[in-house]
Amino acid sequence: MVDNRHVVEEFVARLEARDWEGWASLLHPAVVYELPQSRERIHGRDLYLAFNRAYPGEWHLSVTTVIADDAHGVAWFDWTVGGEEGEEPADGIAFFDLVDGLITRVTDFWPEPYDPPAHRPDFMERY
Amino acid sequence: MVDNRHVVEEFVARLEARDWEGWASLLHPAVVYELPQSRERIHGRDLYLAFNRAYPGEWHLSVTTVIADDAHGVAWFDWTVGGEEGEEPADGIAFFDLVDGLITRVTDFWPEPYDPPAHRPDFMERY
Repeated sequence: MVDNRHVVEEFVARLEARDWEGWASLLHPAVVYELPQSRERIHGRDLYLAFNRAYPGEWHLSVTTVIADDAHGVAWFDWTVGGEEGEEPADGIAFFDLVDGLITRVTDFWPEPYDPPAHRPDFMERY
Repeated sequence: MVDNRHVVEEFVARLEARDWEGWASLLHPAVVYELPQSRERIHGRDLYLAFNRAYPGEWHLSVTTVIADDAHGVAWFDWTVGGEEGEEPADGIAFFDLVDGLITRVTDFWPEPYDPPAHRPDFMERY
């Protein structure tokens, strides 16, 4: 059985390493990439590669948790983009569909910090 | 082996059903609930239950994807809170740690819509 967990781990690790050929080799040629928060989409490995190669900033990714089964995977990762010492990492989440060990769909989320809503119960801690 | 996928599916389904006793029975008494976006935390099943029982709004949850292994799980779900006909669902994501079929940690994310950044390449579609 294909090790989808390993594929997901390598997806993040090869991005971080800017190993573009190695990264693209994990993707199906017809991969679809979606960003639901901005409702943006890219069709195909070549354009998705072009998008990531050109992505601005000194971005870094580091996996926290990977979960995978025989058809899906998820990576929960820390990311920074400023390249500054001491920059606080933020959370990112990417879901994957996989077929025969190739990634056919990537959907990622970039949740932003917000203030707690009003009227939270007293027992909720801040950290 | 405990079916962690089933536990995660039931976590969402019993919330949606307001089956509070059934929902709490999936949780370890010392469960920790965290919301990284607002840096809020709740310790323990009883307070977490109190929080959810009292949560305002006509909220609804519907699972899209569940992935689980022997220690972790994730639920990607649609949610609405307004109770209005035709309300567009938003994406929510909850990660779980599990021990012997009980949930010991829940971390959830509520990614909000945003406009695409400037200087996106022409080949990115909007949907």
